[in-house]
Amino acid sequence: MYFSKFFVPTTKQEPSDAELASHKLMLRSGMIKKTAAGIYNWLPIGLRVLKKVENIVRNSMNAFGAQEILMPMVQPAELWKESERHDEYGKELLKFQDRSERDFVLGPTHEEVICDIFRSYPISYKELPVNLYQIQTKFRDEIRPRFGVMRSREFVMKDAYSFDINEDGLIESYENMKKAYIDAFNKIGLDYRIVKADAGVIGGDVSEEFHIVADSGEDLIAISDSSDFAANVEVLDYSKDPSELNGQKSPDGVGKLQVKRGIEVGHIFQLGKKYSEKMKVSLKNEKGKEQDLYMGCYGIGISRIVAASIEQNHDDKGIVWPYSIAPFHLNIICLDPNKKEILEECESVYKILKKSGHDVLLDDRDVRAGIKFTEHEMLGIPFSIIIGPNNFNKNNYEFTEREGNVKSELNIDEIKQKLEELK
Amino acid sequence: MYFSKFFVPTTKQEPSDAELASHKLMLRSGMIKKTAAGIYNWLPIGLRVLKKVENIVRNSMNAFGAQEILMPMVQPAELWKESERHDEYGKELLKFQDRSERDFVLGPTHEEVICDIFRSYPISYKELPVNLYQIQTKFRDEIRPRFGVMRSREFVMKDAYSFDINEDGLIESYENMKKAYIDAFNKIGLDYRIVKADAGVIGGDVSEEFHIVADSGEDLIAISDSSDFAANVEVLDYSKDPSELNGQKSPDGVGKLQVKRGIEVGHIFQLGKKYSEKMKVSLKNEKGKEQDLYMGCYGIGISRIVAASIEQNHDDKGIVWPYSIAPFHLNIICLDPNKKEILEECESVYKILKKSGHDVLLDDRDVRAGIKFTEHEMLGIPFSIIIGPNNFNKNNYEFTEREGNVKSELNIDEIKQKLEELK
Repeated sequence: MYFSKFFVPTTKQEPSDAELASHKLMLRSGMIKKTAAGIYNWLPIGLRVLKKVENIVRNSMNAFGAQEILMPMVQPAELWKESERHDEYGKELLKFQDRSERDFVLGPTHEEVICDIFRSYPISYKELPVNLYQIQTKFRDEIRPRFGVMRSREFVMKDAYSFDINEDGLIESYENMKKAYIDAFNKIGLDYRIVKADAGVIGGDVSEEFHIVADSGEDLIAISDSSDFAANVEVLDYSKDPSELNGQKSPDGVGKLQVKRGIEVGHIFQLGKKYSEKMKVSLKNEKGKEQDLYMGCYGIGISRIVAASIEQNHDDKGIVWPYSIAPFHLNIICLDPNKKEILEECESVYKILKKSGHDVLLDDRDVRAGIKFTEHEMLGIPFSIIIGPNNFNKNNYEFTEREGNVKSELNIDEIKQKLEELK
Repeated sequence: MYFSKFFVPTTKQEPSDAELASHKLMLRSGMIKKTAAGIYNWLPIGLRVLKKVENIVRNSMNAFGAQEILMPMVQPAELWKESERHDEYGKELLKFQDRSERDFVLGPTHEEVICDIFRSYPISYKELPVNLYQIQTKFRDEIRPRFGVMRSREFVMKDAYSFDINEDGLIESYENMKKAYIDAFNKIGLDYRIVKADAGVIGGDVSEEFHIVADSGEDLIAISDSSDFAANVEVLDYSKDPSELNGQKSPDGVGKLQVKRGIEVGHIFQLGKKYSEKMKVSLKNEKGKEQDLYMGCYGIGISRIVAASIEQNHDDKGIVWPYSIAPFHLNIICLDPNKKEILEECESVYKILKKSGHDVLLDDRDVRAGIKFTEHEMLGIPFSIIIGPNNFNKNNYEFTEREGNVKSELNIDEIKQKLEELK
């Protein structure tokens, strides 16, 4: 992508209504644009990151045997009455009528729709387990949307639903999804903890959350200082203030608890028969007896992950993207694009790297070098090379790693090799 | 994909409420599932086709310089009042209030939102043209949704918006998009006509539609029998019945008109200043004078294309997918999967072809051969090979082209080569 043709409306201005680093940086780097409270547009450089997160999650889901579908955002209210969540879900469920005065809701989650799909086909228990997922836009009418795409009303979510004939099957499907999540979150480059959780309005017996530990998190989680144990404080005993838990013995007997803040980026649930009983999702088991199915559901906040990753990966100059979700891998900073031979050398390097399958930005804009450097750092692209009057037509380029500002002199083959290793 | 693990709820039953071949075949082959009038789910095999269409369109848009973004489905009503379409658009615009009683609409199109984005940044005329597009879910509250995803209320659309400083620029952006559309529709394998059209509620001066000629089409188009001339009958003169136009001299002077039915799959508009004037999308031109921008907008009905393609590509046995959008390229029909050595040979062929990057289905189900053949024909996968007790462990496989039922004996290298050529 040529920067001169790229729609990236960066701004130096500090956004007035943004508190979090991620929110500020996403606005300043032209990743997102607000249309209404909790309702955002993803501009080109932001969407590149969102799509990379989506694709990592999609590949992990496919690798662990889930199948992608696409369910509607507009859902009939009857389905929600059947599951008894039409009232239970509260005001976050946005209700409206169509032109014929039929009642609908904007989907905040899809248990009802998937149950309605599944029960409508004559499926044999031999075909189970089935795990269906989608990556889709959802709407929750939050009373206080804030922090940009971190807690927005409209957002992109990956939600999966598993169906099993018995509880053992459900546990297997659940553990399988847990592995898929670990695979995806590792690839996205997140530093996360798996946390025992409360199932809330989704329901079910067992549930765990995937949290990013960050001071800006809205959840409080208690983590053992010497084991893998972690739990949302909601599921632990304390009398008044969750910070009471600090220093208490960890419930697994290993180490002491520390209370930290976390950002929830994933949540997996063993729903059991909560929905299948109410919505009559059943089939004949191997004994020929009609049997309600055991369901699991599994969510990942795709758009929230983009913000959460920035919370974990930024410095005072801007974003520091992990390679796997960076909008571009390398930025070629062209210091004098008006000089034909310099621009041509930049373009030749650009073509070589593009051809090798790397995402490359070429900053060919006719602006001061200082602006190019400052914006490069704000945008968080992992690597840059500088081509200008001083090094032009030499074999080596100044190659800089955004993280730690590490500089080296590399030729084109060494640059290719460096990027290849990270693929 | 192993068919035994694939969620494809096919049915032999003729759906009672489906009139069109595409609607029947999409329901029978387990591609889609209805949730409410005009509201459908895309099941795994359907979504595979939808994603292929999406990706072809995405690549063509990128190749012609458009940049992908993602705008919200929930839009503030104020924006629609500004453009004066809040009333003008009619009842297809679904209106509702959020929990704080603020007015919103479900986006049927995004001229208002894109104008609001574009006007909020200090952009120089030197940065124009800019062309931004999205592939996104839209909602139009049709009074009579019908024909499955052909005329649904919720649907996936590609919509693009160009901004230029003057009319010459607009014309160039428009012609550029026309080329992108020709590129995409050719790759999708559609037999289409470009048709002069009326701009309708979107507005503007010049507009053309891309139509698939099909008896089931809802539009009437008049086509010259000896030139490229084609027009929606809406823009032609006739007194009562459009069939009057049959046999009239073509307006371009070449040949005679024939009135046919068409399915609109794309529409491009020169909007001019219709929205930019009302919504104050302006910037300083090279003379330093504030200037309203010239806009174009360009839509492709992604989900409709899937149905339209079936209308053009089916026979009495089922769908006949063009290679480029087929859910799978080849189906390995395993005739006796319970015999270990036969299944192993199927799996070995499967792995070889998957490794070469082809989309392969392996029908390893424990069902009668007749069911496998019938369903293979209904699903429309372009090629199949049969591996069973008779040809197992020989070098050649019975290779069948779905279109025309052409059979040949090919070995694995010849099959690979055949698929490679079509890539």
